[in-house]
Amino acid sequence: MTMTQKILASHCGKESVAAGDMIMAGLDLVLGNDITSPVAINEYEKACCGEVFDCNRIALVLDHFTPNKDIKAAEQSKQVREFAGRKGITNFFDVGEMGVEHALLPEKGLVVSGDVVIGADSHTCTYGALGAFSTGVGSTDMAAGMAYGKAWFKVPSAIRFNLTGKLNKWVSGKDVILHIIGMIGVDGALYKSMEFSGDGVASLTMDDRLCIANMAIEAGGKNGIFPVDEQTLAYIAEHSDRKPVVFAADEDAPYDAVYDIDLSQIKSTVSFPHLPSNTKTVDEAGEVTIDQVVIGSCTNGRLSDLREAAGILRGKRVHKNVRTIVIPATQKIYLQAMEEGLLKDFIEAGCVVSTPTCGPCLGGHMGILAEGERCVATTNRNFVGRMGHPKSEVYLASPAVAAASAIAGRIASPESL
Amino acid sequence: MTMTQKILASHCGKESVAAGDMIMAGLDLVLGNDITSPVAINEYEKACCGEVFDCNRIALVLDHFTPNKDIKAAEQSKQVREFAGRKGITNFFDVGEMGVEHALLPEKGLVVSGDVVIGADSHTCTYGALGAFSTGVGSTDMAAGMAYGKAWFKVPSAIRFNLTGKLNKWVSGKDVILHIIGMIGVDGALYKSMEFSGDGVASLTMDDRLCIANMAIEAGGKNGIFPVDEQTLAYIAEHSDRKPVVFAADEDAPYDAVYDIDLSQIKSTVSFPHLPSNTKTVDEAGEVTIDQVVIGSCTNGRLSDLREAAGILRGKRVHKNVRTIVIPATQKIYLQAMEEGLLKDFIEAGCVVSTPTCGPCLGGHMGILAEGERCVATTNRNFVGRMGHPKSEVYLASPAVAAASAIAGRIASPESL
Repeated sequence: MTMTQKILASHCGKESVAAGDMIMAGLDLVLGNDITSPVAINEYEKACCGEVFDCNRIALVLDHFTPNKDIKAAEQSKQVREFAGRKGITNFFDVGEMGVEHALLPEKGLVVSGDVVIGADSHTCTYGALGAFSTGVGSTDMAAGMAYGKAWFKVPSAIRFNLTGKLNKWVSGKDVILHIIGMIGVDGALYKSMEFSGDGVASLTMDDRLCIANMAIEAGGKNGIFPVDEQTLAYIAEHSDRKPVVFAADEDAPYDAVYDIDLSQIKSTVSFPHLPSNTKTVDEAGEVTIDQVVIGSCTNGRLSDLREAAGILRGKRVHKNVRTIVIPATQKIYLQAMEEGLLKDFIEAGCVVSTPTCGPCLGGHMGILAEGERCVATTNRNFVGRMGHPKSEVYLASPAVAAASAIAGRIASPESL
Repeated sequence: MTMTQKILASHCGKESVAAGDMIMAGLDLVLGNDITSPVAINEYEKACCGEVFDCNRIALVLDHFTPNKDIKAAEQSKQVREFAGRKGITNFFDVGEMGVEHALLPEKGLVVSGDVVIGADSHTCTYGALGAFSTGVGSTDMAAGMAYGKAWFKVPSAIRFNLTGKLNKWVSGKDVILHIIGMIGVDGALYKSMEFSGDGVASLTMDDRLCIANMAIEAGGKNGIFPVDEQTLAYIAEHSDRKPVVFAADEDAPYDAVYDIDLSQIKSTVSFPHLPSNTKTVDEAGEVTIDQVVIGSCTNGRLSDLREAAGILRGKRVHKNVRTIVIPATQKIYLQAMEEGLLKDFIEAGCVVSTPTCGPCLGGHMGILAEGERCVATTNRNFVGRMGHPKSEVYLASPAVAAASAIAGRIASPESL
């Protein structure tokens, strides 16, 4: 079995499962946010369910349109807040405690290796970085998950990405996953596990892995997952009281395909509009002037991302035509970045620093684009209209490329400054 | 003549003016923001005007719905940005350089004593704190002002507020102006100057005066204005290269009314829904539980406001039911507050810190209220629906009361903690 299949088997009381099996798996955590939870709550309450399956294993995070961007957002937040109160949900994260969900949950120690997690948010696949099976579901599956602690799955087959070598300076997890999506396409891993393996994994930081797993969905993947190593266990020990359960793929596990990727050959990569798979290396980008840069999101709003960007922006000024919006992904990251002086670097460079929110990534608020405007963003999607006007453009890149581009006023590599 | 009348006379080439005179006055500065400037620009361009009267004496500040909260806001910002570019307007403040306009302009030294300033924003009266005549106008007057550097006025009569004594601890300029509005009503100074004078003025900080003048419009005042003293001149010398021109009211200046106010008798004051004049002292407030606190705005987002609030929140936690949103009014204030450790105090207390924006004050974004929710805000208006749902409630108060209320979960005085 693949690593994913072993985790799923362990959660449905079977010795083994195979690709295509339909299973009902027990859930370690059910996640929702301020825009998906209201739909789930409505379904939950229509079915007249009583108590939730476990008030400690549901996480409700108000992160998308918060601090409330309008009355509708305020009403949605209120509905989730009241539901959490009625059901005694312990992991409810409101403004002031919150952060972008996929940065927050690992930080709070709510996911550990071996878990099965569903979330009514497509980037729930992030937790594969911790050796968990996690995947995005619809709000009705979230409702059923909250009620019964179970979800049905078709067991996925897998693609293996065998990583070797080490990343060069300024190249990060974001470039790895953009490179892969560019290589296999946005449906290249459709309903499959993306299992990462090989010597190269050890050289990737946990933040790199979280970023890579986060964007598995952008290749159509059911999940992305990393082997559990000392770094994983150290991360979990630092953040969680829970005990990880370590699964590893069998040596003879079946894979639909195996890709060998030499990390040392990956260059800074940019996804051009309007698909994550529409990649070019930054050297091939040509002259693309920009109006805005966003550094943040569940993909790249972590401390190492802010360090990378601040390292480039420190002592410089962003281009006068570029609104540069930095969004630390959680309150803890915000505080750490402040204590390290990174936020000072950003402000002195002419950036603005937002409180944690998903905001601009999905066209919510905090930096929406007008017609014809172009943004370099460390976010995860660049579909038509994703960050605002249907005729605006989003270019996905790493924090390093985003920071360099903010200074240059056009897509630029850090080396070119 | 009153102080206001002397400034107006000096700007229309007359020896003297009297209340009721219609005059055309020269303007030292014309201000607009991201929601009023587009209307002004449309009018300006309809009239086929060429160049603006003076590209150095127009200030365009993108502060209300920025960083862009939606596509409409993005288009409005873009229109203003492009107009500023075409006309070579030097004082254009975009995301990254900006702040809440009425905090930003004094900080940038754009207003000095003796100026006549119009702004397409009702709180333009703020600059009376610097001994300038400044008032809010409609967008069409702003358009004409940008074209010709002139505006018509009916010369206002005045009410004199004779201040004596000193404020007690935790009592600030906000309490003074709420007390006055409570006393004279929201139309108590309709189309009149509110001229502050007396021994008590010296004890008020510039931030107190900016806050008091800011809310003159909430009593219907055409403007609010303070005498120019050493503190004023020191503030201007620190912030501006321009030379202030000092006017003082004649000893026999005519006033429609004179109020004597002993600052030492003023208590922490709260404006209950839904009028700024609906005041109670905080001791009389009773048990009012709250859902949100906003500390910021052109009224109370300055450094001294943040210091006052942080002094109360330091080492404590905000109540679990209270989303507490702190919004430094400008990038400079944000940086200063960070360097002083105030932002750390806020985050550790469970507040969120926003990038500068008017946001929630006018129901724009960054903390909108749902039905039935209550907010204590250091902002300037609590009309029905001002911060969100028509059935939400806003209670206006000082930063000290707002901070204490955030901790208590209900309207509270700092002394009661």
